[in-house]
Amino acid sequence: MSEFVNRKWVVASRPEVEVELSNFELQEEPVADLEPGQLLLKSRYVGVNPPMRMALVSGGIAGRPIPIGRTMYGGGLAEVAASEHPKFAVGDLVQGELGWQEYAISDGARRHAVNKVEAPAGLSETTLMHVMGGSGATAYFGMIEYCKPRPGDTLVVSTAAGTVGALVCQLGRLQGCRVVGIAGSEDKCNYVTSELGAEACINYKSEDVAERLRETCPDGINIYFDNVGGETLDAVLGQIAFGARVVLCGGTSQYNNDLDWYGPKNYFNLVYQQAEMYGYFIGNFSHRYHESRARIGALLREGRMTYREDVLEGIESLPTQLIRILRGENFGIPMVRIS
Amino acid sequence: MSEFVNRKWVVASRPEVEVELSNFELQEEPVADLEPGQLLLKSRYVGVNPPMRMALVSGGIAGRPIPIGRTMYGGGLAEVAASEHPKFAVGDLVQGELGWQEYAISDGARRHAVNKVEAPAGLSETTLMHVMGGSGATAYFGMIEYCKPRPGDTLVVSTAAGTVGALVCQLGRLQGCRVVGIAGSEDKCNYVTSELGAEACINYKSEDVAERLRETCPDGINIYFDNVGGETLDAVLGQIAFGARVVLCGGTSQYNNDLDWYGPKNYFNLVYQQAEMYGYFIGNFSHRYHESRARIGALLREGRMTYREDVLEGIESLPTQLIRILRGENFGIPMVRIS
Repeated sequence: MSEFVNRKWVVASRPEVEVELSNFELQEEPVADLEPGQLLLKSRYVGVNPPMRMALVSGGIAGRPIPIGRTMYGGGLAEVAASEHPKFAVGDLVQGELGWQEYAISDGARRHAVNKVEAPAGLSETTLMHVMGGSGATAYFGMIEYCKPRPGDTLVVSTAAGTVGALVCQLGRLQGCRVVGIAGSEDKCNYVTSELGAEACINYKSEDVAERLRETCPDGINIYFDNVGGETLDAVLGQIAFGARVVLCGGTSQYNNDLDWYGPKNYFNLVYQQAEMYGYFIGNFSHRYHESRARIGALLREGRMTYREDVLEGIESLPTQLIRILRGENFGIPMVRIS
Repeated sequence: MSEFVNRKWVVASRPEVEVELSNFELQEEPVADLEPGQLLLKSRYVGVNPPMRMALVSGGIAGRPIPIGRTMYGGGLAEVAASEHPKFAVGDLVQGELGWQEYAISDGARRHAVNKVEAPAGLSETTLMHVMGGSGATAYFGMIEYCKPRPGDTLVVSTAAGTVGALVCQLGRLQGCRVVGIAGSEDKCNYVTSELGAEACINYKSEDVAERLRETCPDGINIYFDNVGGETLDAVLGQIAFGARVVLCGGTSQYNNDLDWYGPKNYFNLVYQQAEMYGYFIGNFSHRYHESRARIGALLREGRMTYREDVLEGIESLPTQLIRILRGENFGIPMVRIS
């Protein structure tokens, strides 16, 4: 056995409704010696995201849930702690699927989702996990390929203070849209209007979303970037403008509902308004990530875009961070610093 | 007063749920003398359609219902019975908004929806009211602009034996699609498979639509042309294929529900399948009706397309015909011959 000891979170039970700490168990194990061609990854940061609840319960898009007793999955950044692989040296930074653990053994193959990376010039290495990674691409391609923003359009964004939502607000503003955010606290709403350039932000926990949409979008909604689904989506569909684009990116409000999602009663307004609704999944654009990285990286370095992180410390915090984001209690891009 | 006596159906009351005969009252009145620039239209055929129920209750797209005591509206074909208008002669055939009545006075302006027309060469004049008119255009532009059919696609069509549905089935077949219809009786299903070229037809009144869709569309549904909404739309959304196109054209199953439509719970499958859902309204294509008329006219004359009418006789039949189509009891394109 190697000198290393791994701590990892395994799935202990399935959530009945809300994810709870008891759904996970922290285990300790010695790390096996490396075989030729393998490398040992030491986790620096691991991310969490709302669809993880579906992975725990029904499987979501993957079709089957993570088996009980298996290490919870999660992507992140790691450094190479030991290497028997010719292309990786100790200290290299890699990004990929690490799991909720301190150490992972990899064969270094890209198909196993381990890529050697470098911190982007002038930016924190953690940006690779969000604005310079998949979330940045999600916001960027969702905007240019589906939202099709025009100057003067009214753009509504849910989870406007969230990882993707905050980028969409800023991209919309940069393209001349009037941006109205929807978020879950006064603090988040203040951030959306003061830092992200939105003209207004609706607090869905304390305000009547449909009524506030009527007030803030008197000429109707031209674009809706949806991260939540449910009654918010329905309220927006009731107020779309002629020719609107509705981009379905997430359904956070429904991830606890498993097989009984809220169906939007106002969907037929798509007909009245000759509007379009797109199911959007970033996978189709993976060959173009260099494009979103280049654009967003430049905007960040020029100070024309911003982001905010919500970092908890230590592997012990992973279940807590997941529970926080499912309750909307995080404020900023959620992650956990492992080492 | 002129020599003519008009009979007309006025709105007597609003439907509570289903439209009933008592919601209309047949009234008789003398026809006023024409003033210069006016013409008197004698109705030949008047059409009925499912959205008329919304016009009676909530107003639907028009936003407000037809006032009580007002003549029920309805488009159709008429001949000029008298004319004080320089561009119209007695005997001319016109098409437009006539109302549910035997005689209408018009100023002949196109903006009042009165157009001089001619029966298409080799085809019945009534085709102007459907396959050579708005319904033909609806099917044609819906197919080419939104469904984007590819050979080998599986196309599902609801109200497959209906005016638009029957055309969509045939256009899909002509473009190399595998067509699966959904209709409301054995007779209609037989018609859809034997006359319209569908490979299968699901009787939604006697069969489990979701189960039969799994059987008849084992590789998923590439295109859905929706005329009904409700649980049928939901069942289809549960089985769309990757990259599917869902075209919302009508919502017949929900027109009785006013403000409480059934929302499709499976809408998020649009994300999983990277699919698109379009609200489609034919008005955008009115400048291109000549295109659909030319194509469909040629296909009809060549015997490569067919249609079926369901004609009731006499102005007395108008409410009955509307009630029949709302119940799905018609079989063929519904209209009433007035004279």
